[in-house]
Amino acid sequence: MSLVEKILSKKTGEDISAGDSIEVEVDLAMTHDGTTPLTYKALQEMSNNVWDPEKIVIAFDHNVPPNTVKAAEMQKLTLEFVKKFKIKKFHKGGEGICHQILAENYVLPNMFIAGGDSHTCTHGAFGAFATGFGATDMAYIYATGETWIKVPKTIKVEITGRNENISAKDIVLKVCKEIGRRGATYMAIEYCGEVVKNMSMASRMTLCNMAIEMGGKTGIIETDEITYNYLKKERGLSDDDINKLKKERITVNKDEANYHKEVVIDITDMEEQIAVPHHPDNVKPVSEVAGKAIDQVFIGSCTNGRLEDLREAAKYLKGRRVHEDVKLIVIPASKKVFLQALKEGIIEVFIKAGAMICTPGCGPCLGAHQGVLAEGEVCLSTTNRNFRGRMGHINSYIYLSSPKIAAISAVKGYISNEI
Amino acid sequence: MSLVEKILSKKTGEDISAGDSIEVEVDLAMTHDGTTPLTYKALQEMSNNVWDPEKIVIAFDHNVPPNTVKAAEMQKLTLEFVKKFKIKKFHKGGEGICHQILAENYVLPNMFIAGGDSHTCTHGAFGAFATGFGATDMAYIYATGETWIKVPKTIKVEITGRNENISAKDIVLKVCKEIGRRGATYMAIEYCGEVVKNMSMASRMTLCNMAIEMGGKTGIIETDEITYNYLKKERGLSDDDINKLKKERITVNKDEANYHKEVVIDITDMEEQIAVPHHPDNVKPVSEVAGKAIDQVFIGSCTNGRLEDLREAAKYLKGRRVHEDVKLIVIPASKKVFLQALKEGIIEVFIKAGAMICTPGCGPCLGAHQGVLAEGEVCLSTTNRNFRGRMGHINSYIYLSSPKIAAISAVKGYISNEI
Repeated sequence: MSLVEKILSKKTGEDISAGDSIEVEVDLAMTHDGTTPLTYKALQEMSNNVWDPEKIVIAFDHNVPPNTVKAAEMQKLTLEFVKKFKIKKFHKGGEGICHQILAENYVLPNMFIAGGDSHTCTHGAFGAFATGFGATDMAYIYATGETWIKVPKTIKVEITGRNENISAKDIVLKVCKEIGRRGATYMAIEYCGEVVKNMSMASRMTLCNMAIEMGGKTGIIETDEITYNYLKKERGLSDDDINKLKKERITVNKDEANYHKEVVIDITDMEEQIAVPHHPDNVKPVSEVAGKAIDQVFIGSCTNGRLEDLREAAKYLKGRRVHEDVKLIVIPASKKVFLQALKEGIIEVFIKAGAMICTPGCGPCLGAHQGVLAEGEVCLSTTNRNFRGRMGHINSYIYLSSPKIAAISAVKGYISNEI
Repeated sequence: MSLVEKILSKKTGEDISAGDSIEVEVDLAMTHDGTTPLTYKALQEMSNNVWDPEKIVIAFDHNVPPNTVKAAEMQKLTLEFVKKFKIKKFHKGGEGICHQILAENYVLPNMFIAGGDSHTCTHGAFGAFATGFGATDMAYIYATGETWIKVPKTIKVEITGRNENISAKDIVLKVCKEIGRRGATYMAIEYCGEVVKNMSMASRMTLCNMAIEMGGKTGIIETDEITYNYLKKERGLSDDDINKLKKERITVNKDEANYHKEVVIDITDMEEQIAVPHHPDNVKPVSEVAGKAIDQVFIGSCTNGRLEDLREAAKYLKGRRVHEDVKLIVIPASKKVFLQALKEGIIEVFIKAGAMICTPGCGPCLGAHQGVLAEGEVCLSTTNRNFRGRMGHINSYIYLSSPKIAAISAVKGYISNEI
């Protein structure tokens, strides 16, 4: 059995396999300022109540502070929802990106997490089954606490070798290239291998976050000491809590699991990777893209807005100036990340270098504000999607990279991995 | 002669009086991302060049980072202008609000400053003649370095008494009430009196900034030791520079000056002031407005986004939480202010309290982004204008106050001057 099959078997109490359709109880459900209004509307046609206000998280992240009257109206409506159903796990603008808020506060291994956002797959990093749903499905979940899914097949992705220049973002871009934009449609991507075993939770989140870019239902990684240490240190779980989680730990015998496909990537001789317009699987080694002039750099998002990402970027920006032709936008993924980065002097480094810092949230990732592109402009971004027109004008160009490459390129004025 | 008459006489070398039409050489000219494109277009019909690239300042502040494709296109066009004419005094997004950038870098006493923004009057705080022009006038200035004006009459506003609860913002709101929205049309407002004599440059800028809200051509204040100390400490002027400025100091015998009108405001028993919708002269003492529920608070802008404003707000936010129903947006007026506030721990105070921090710029003041209001929403703002619909929906409501009242009210959830 794959990790997903095992987790869903445990959830349902039955031995289930890929292809089975199952009903499942949701442990944690989330919508944000972009998806709550439609979910709320659909809910009103189903129920006058929510199944469990304690299991619902609402976060404002897509347009914070509101950038249009419409965005403000959507937040107003979402606040009505929060008040009506007494949602206590409400995170207002500035507290962070929904996925980071979930990671910092609520996600636990073996959970079934339903999010009204496609990058909900991020939480597979905690050994949870986490996936995105549309508004009507989310409304049904809010009404009943249940949903159904067809159990996905699993692609095993093993990352081996050693290379200090390579970040989780380089790896996941390479995986996107290998698997392709439709290569994992409705499948889980189970990451494993020595590289993943040594990865921080932040890096694991980067890996899982982009499963959807290959059509994946989710990305997922087995829990281990790194997971438990994070839960203890960052989340304050007690030793008892941790021991309980360890007892319920789900592992996979990877030789016996019935994977749909297996991919092995050895990073030893791998170059840093860049996704070029207009799809995240359109990936090239940095040497083939180096020198490309850029107008904007964005460091942030649910893919690469965490502390380790900001630390990495700050290494290259410290004492340097952003190129005069480049707008550098840096947005910490959460209030917690922002405060820690403040404390470490990282925010000061960015501001001194000439960056624009915005309040924690999605920022320009979805092209709504805080870094919209003009015709012909080129943005190098640490986000997960470079679809045509996503960040502004239909004839603008998004390249995706790691925070390191983003920071170096912001200084250079063109794509580069050498400072 | 009034201060304006004396400055303009010195500039032109003739004894001029209110009502005279004069041609004058411009010492410093400025347009921002909102006004450069139209100025550039008009310039192209007049000239292939600018008169003096050293005297032109371009700042990106109105939509930073760009919030729409249109805003991005305008900045792209402005950058073309900057490159074409080799403008070195170019300040990109994140460096601050144009008026704050001018104050921190370029403004000197006795200058004639022409800005493509109505709040250019702010610089009267330095004993300069500073006023806003439309794009065609700015284009003519960019082409020739000259403009013409009718010399304005002057209203003398004397501020007397002592009251530690009263800030420059309370005073200028009271002045707006006394003079009225059309009471100073095409006039200068010359501030004086013991209170003004003891005011910081930041507070003097707050006073002069709102002259336009009474229809004024400019606000203006005589230079003194406080002016010179600012220029020395904050701007790094040498003793020689300062001595030269002192030799050229222009003062006014206020008994002999031919003022159009004289207003005296004694602050001793004055309450803190609030402008209520929908005009800055619609001012009431805070006791008459206290208790009004609010949805949003904005602390920032060219009126009240300086260090002393953030320090004052932080006093009341330290260790407290923003009310759950309130969005608090804090935007430092410049990169310099941001860095100093970081250093003093003020930014941390704001973030911990639950504020959204955005990159230095105009923010939600003009309703373009970063805090747009939904229908029925109420914002308490430290800005200068509460015109109907300015910050979002036509049926939203803006109240204006000092940073202190704004901070206290953000905690309370309603307008209050008592923490």
